[in-house]
Amino acid sequence: MPELLQPQLAVAAADTAAGDTAWLLAAAALVLLMAPGLAFFYGGMVRSKSVLNMMMMVFGALAVVMVVWVLVGYSLAFGDDLGGGLVGDPTQFAGFKGMLEADPEASYPITLFAAFQGLFAVITVGLIAGAIADRTRFGTWLVFAGLWTVLVYAPVAHWIFDFSAGDHVGGWMANRLGALDFAGGTAVEINSGAAGLAAALVLGRRVGFGRDPMKPHNLTLVMVGAGLLWFGWFGFNAGSALAANNTAAIVFVNTLLAGCTGLLAWLAVERFRDGHATSFGAASGVVAGLVAITPSCGAVTPIGAMLVGVAAGAICALAVGLKYTFKYDDSLDVVGVHLVGGLVGTIIIGLLASSDVTSVDGLLYGGGADQLGKQLVAAGATLAFSFTMTALLVWVLEKTMGFRVDPEHEVAGVDLVIHAETAYDLHITGGARPHFGPGTGSMHS
Amino acid sequence: MPELLQPQLAVAAADTAAGDTAWLLAAAALVLLMAPGLAFFYGGMVRSKSVLNMMMMVFGALAVVMVVWVLVGYSLAFGDDLGGGLVGDPTQFAGFKGMLEADPEASYPITLFAAFQGLFAVITVGLIAGAIADRTRFGTWLVFAGLWTVLVYAPVAHWIFDFSAGDHVGGWMANRLGALDFAGGTAVEINSGAAGLAAALVLGRRVGFGRDPMKPHNLTLVMVGAGLLWFGWFGFNAGSALAANNTAAIVFVNTLLAGCTGLLAWLAVERFRDGHATSFGAASGVVAGLVAITPSCGAVTPIGAMLVGVAAGAICALAVGLKYTFKYDDSLDVVGVHLVGGLVGTIIIGLLASSDVTSVDGLLYGGGADQLGKQLVAAGATLAFSFTMTALLVWVLEKTMGFRVDPEHEVAGVDLVIHAETAYDLHITGGARPHFGPGTGSMHS
Amino acid sequence: MPELLQPQLAVAAADTAAGDTAWLLAAAALVLLMAPGLAFFYGGMVRSKSVLNMMMMVFGALAVVMVVWVLVGYSLAFGDDLGGGLVGDPTQFAGFKGMLEADPEASYPITLFAAFQGLFAVITVGLIAGAIADRTRFGTWLVFAGLWTVLVYAPVAHWIFDFSAGDHVGGWMANRLGALDFAGGTAVEINSGAAGLAAALVLGRRVGFGRDPMKPHNLTLVMVGAGLLWFGWFGFNAGSALAANNTAAIVFVNTLLAGCTGLLAWLAVERFRDGHATSFGAASGVVAGLVAITPSCGAVTPIGAMLVGVAAGAICALAVGLKYTFKYDDSLDVVGVHLVGGLVGTIIIGLLASSDVTSVDGLLYGGGADQLGKQLVAAGATLAFSFTMTALLVWVLEKTMGFRVDPEHEVAGVDLVIHAETAYDLHITGGARPHFGPGTGSMHS
Repeated sequence: MPELLQPQLAVAAADTAAGDTAWLLAAAALVLLMAPGLAFFYGGMVRSKSVLNMMMMVFGALAVVMVVWVLVGYSLAFGDDLGGGLVGDPTQFAGFKGMLEADPEASYPITLFAAFQGLFAVITVGLIAGAIADRTRFGTWLVFAGLWTVLVYAPVAHWIFDFSAGDHVGGWMANRLGALDFAGGTAVEINSGAAGLAAALVLGRRVGFGRDPMKPHNLTLVMVGAGLLWFGWFGFNAGSALAANNTAAIVFVNTLLAGCTGLLAWLAVERFRDGHATSFGAASGVVAGLVAITPSCGAVTPIGAMLVGVAAGAICALAVGLKYTFKYDDSLDVVGVHLVGGLVGTIIIGLLASSDVTSVDGLLYGGGADQLGKQLVAAGATLAFSFTMTALLVWVLEKTMGFRVDPEHEVAGVDLVIHAETAYDLHITGGARPHFGPGTGSMHS
Repeated sequence: MPELLQPQLAVAAADTAAGDTAWLLAAAALVLLMAPGLAFFYGGMVRSKSVLNMMMMVFGALAVVMVVWVLVGYSLAFGDDLGGGLVGDPTQFAGFKGMLEADPEASYPITLFAAFQGLFAVITVGLIAGAIADRTRFGTWLVFAGLWTVLVYAPVAHWIFDFSAGDHVGGWMANRLGALDFAGGTAVEINSGAAGLAAALVLGRRVGFGRDPMKPHNLTLVMVGAGLLWFGWFGFNAGSALAANNTAAIVFVNTLLAGCTGLLAWLAVERFRDGHATSFGAASGVVAGLVAITPSCGAVTPIGAMLVGVAAGAICALAVGLKYTFKYDDSLDVVGVHLVGGLVGTIIIGLLASSDVTSVDGLLYGGGADQLGKQLVAAGATLAFSFTMTALLVWVLEKTMGFRVDPEHEVAGVDLVIHAETAYDLHITGGARPHFGPGTGSMHS
Repeated sequence: MPELLQPQLAVAAADTAAGDTAWLLAAAALVLLMAPGLAFFYGGMVRSKSVLNMMMMVFGALAVVMVVWVLVGYSLAFGDDLGGGLVGDPTQFAGFKGMLEADPEASYPITLFAAFQGLFAVITVGLIAGAIADRTRFGTWLVFAGLWTVLVYAPVAHWIFDFSAGDHVGGWMANRLGALDFAGGTAVEINSGAAGLAAALVLGRRVGFGRDPMKPHNLTLVMVGAGLLWFGWFGFNAGSALAANNTAAIVFVNTLLAGCTGLLAWLAVERFRDGHATSFGAASGVVAGLVAITPSCGAVTPIGAMLVGVAAGAICALAVGLKYTFKYDDSLDVVGVHLVGGLVGTIIIGLLASSDVTSVDGLLYGGGADQLGKQLVAAGATLAFSFTMTALLVWVLEKTMGFRVDPEHEVAGVDLVIHAETAYDLHITGGARPHFGPGTGSMHS
């Protein structure tokens, strides 16, 4: 009775669509929230004279990257491959053309997928801002954000996120190499970290680096950012399942656990090395764990996820000190957390992947070293490409438009000089306040 | 075989319900979050002596409006029309009666729809607070919030959001006029903006308006608010699709893009006019773009959405200066952003609507001027009704209960005088802090 | 034609899974966000010298509790009963073993349920921190968090949340007693409140309690916390429906309304008692209403939910004064809000339960006193067990590891002493700021 089965299948497709689409809508909103979350996380870390500039770098990147993504970036990443698995056809979906009609075969609308992926580009670019905080021209930064999306992000996303299917040919890392990267250890984490390192090296150190204290001006804002990032990261990782199913659930659990053990491992390193566990370390440890679980969340068991978090938390806690050794001013530790954490998470798949969750077993789970090799190639290729391209791009922008602000403006503070604003006008009035003693009833603590 | 088809349809209905309901649950939670988001956005903009009062105006409005909504507001808006398409039957769903049982025919529970719509009323009332910041009695404000919901919001919501179906007769703008307003350009944006203008005019200018600097006391709080508002707006707009489907996805994408180009356009105006792009402008530009896409998100293509954002960002950036020209003290630019942005977004549908997305083509997409005329009527009717009713209501409340605080209390600050609180007690201690140099390891920036 | 019906049912199961799973994914993310929300809510309430410590207590509890939950806690709570309905088999799901495979019969993945439940334990432990703010060793707190999860939370969760089904035997309160508790009036609210009281009594009062003003250092941060908590609470309560259905919708509406009337009732008490309605009262009233609706959200009508909020807001507003009468230093009113609010919400089910919503009618809705009796037993058992166990545990930890910091460290501030940090470095520069007058255009308020 094919007439009967046909509508039945249509019912199934339509209904799966509603459930999967519901989750993808929520997940995309969560990833959008990561941009403000990142702005607060980084904004709290800089000095009070440049917090607004940092927030605007992230918000501005969001705006520029999304526009560029719709116009050309999405096509470069997810258009039909132009040859060699290197880049997609830039005109195929320009302006999201031909994507507006509902596809009864698909379990989610393609525009929603495209927006979701665009927000990954946004976060990646936003992260780079942390490496060059306090010292860049805002206009040049916006130009950089747009060009970097086209020249660096979109190709790498094509390599690892664009799967071949039917007539469609995708990128080399996902399809020919067979590297595993569930939600962006390469395209997002290693990519942003390597770019941050390149940008910090080309633009040079801040005035007073290694001499003046440059501690976070508002750790409560850092914690607000960390909290929103963690919340949003569930959309980032579990949303990458592109379905509300068992895989999404395991990814969710892994994302939760790696953040937890990342925090604990970072604090343990601080406690034993410095004698104090800090809130800044707690926030950083959560993020380090989340960075490392980003590629591996779809490949490891919950126990594996806890190990990933421990490895990332401990290694990144040590790695953030490297900038003082090697004297590069990666202002907010994009290298120490995202490059190093991304490498840990991408490579560790070769060790901890479990066939209970994914298609292969890692070295420590009784598989061979094959997958480890593939992961190393993917990580290395991303690192090399991103570092080289970014160094070149930043250098060209510095020589043409000027990327770095004048030293006296940097000292005065970019908020005031570039944006004609200061963040706070709190009028700490002290004596003018009324007295609230216990028992007055108007306050209960 | 009708016996077989019948259960099949029941399956379809039940399953669609789970997917659509999942998204509507998330969307309603997102709209709830817009109330705190608005409280922070506006709270950061006022001076530090009235931030708590501003937050309480929004939280208090949330509480009062929702109670009034359950008791009578929802019935006025979505009850059977009493005649002329002007208002619904106030007793029909009083106390949400008769709404608790599951309806197997519906794709989402009706109580959830009612709560979702109630939160739209909350946001609309909350916006009005921005126009009369720093100078109102809190008790009178709560009374205003309840009365305005009944007298102004519920009727306008009936006009535009209550669609006729089966036996049910809805409002005149949606059904007889045929104006398009996906998520509230009229009922929420023009409505709140016109009400804010009326309230600001009737209550008068703040002490020192046009003379004293009245700049935002905490721009990081403004950015936190803007970030949460944007996040929540996905629930507001894409939730208005009332389904997890292709329409919701397009609305999502449009909401994302208009916020982006709103930001860019506002910053461009600032840069060329003032020489500086500010964080306050970035936050305002995002909101302006979101305001204008609210009615149009279901009618334009992604390219159209980018144009909507550009138009709103640029026009609102210019419009916020009008209060200095015309000397009305719309404290936080509810008129400049929500009235003007709401007009832009409602009217622009007549120009940019695309039959790829909605039922008609706008003037610039090859349709006639018909839809433009309908949009102008809807916008004008909302503006006139809201302005008149609100002016009257505020005037009556000022004459009876007293709406505005005494001038000396206004100068001292409403937080202290009305709420017996001050927001911050930060003990900036300076010298008491330990030194964290580079390399100590306990800080990594 | 059973061959036809069979696939049809499979379709139904698979599709329900997607919709229900979509909501449970979002709900679990929302509950995760409650941890940062709680950290900000409590962080804003303490003095500026201990805000970071408070935030770390909550974030640290999140990390420790989740790890312990995966290793053993979930099994204790949801494993097969070991006898008497007291506790589950601790080895059954150790490390989430045997839970990774998709179950085609289930409407959501079991790992997702387990993570969702684990986050309830996190929030419960986090709440206890509020009772002993400003005066504990961080390391001992982490040990406490892990042990309390195993010794107190997991058993109580087993009692009330673990339903018998098929071969599986669950806890005594849910199954044998038949107490109603939709989302944790006992396991979360009474449990944390009783534990907070015990811990505060054993550790003793802060230096200066009852003498020095100890008012909230940052009420904007309290409001940010309250906003995020309310948002997250929709996941907590409506997520506990474990489905995107009519029940979830009613729970959602009830959660919204009880928060609203809790706010209004608390402010009314303040206004009549003290002459001032405060923002701190608004935030506390919302939370009190949410606490009380947590157990009752699945048992009352929307009108009932408004009454629950009124009762909780008013009673808790009075109850927070008890600590000055009885001289226990429950620093942030965990007892007054969570113990008292939890008791109100758990017991009131016996009065206000409606058979329109749940299986029984309460006393005031024409049912007998039976359910009231069951609710009293459940509330009393939880209170007694939690208070006794916690007092013992805190006492042992104080005697062995030391739980309380030295008095001089407490006075100096735990942020500086324990974490070597201070929260703010805002450089209030005053004179260095440029002038922004009206009409300059670079500021629009």
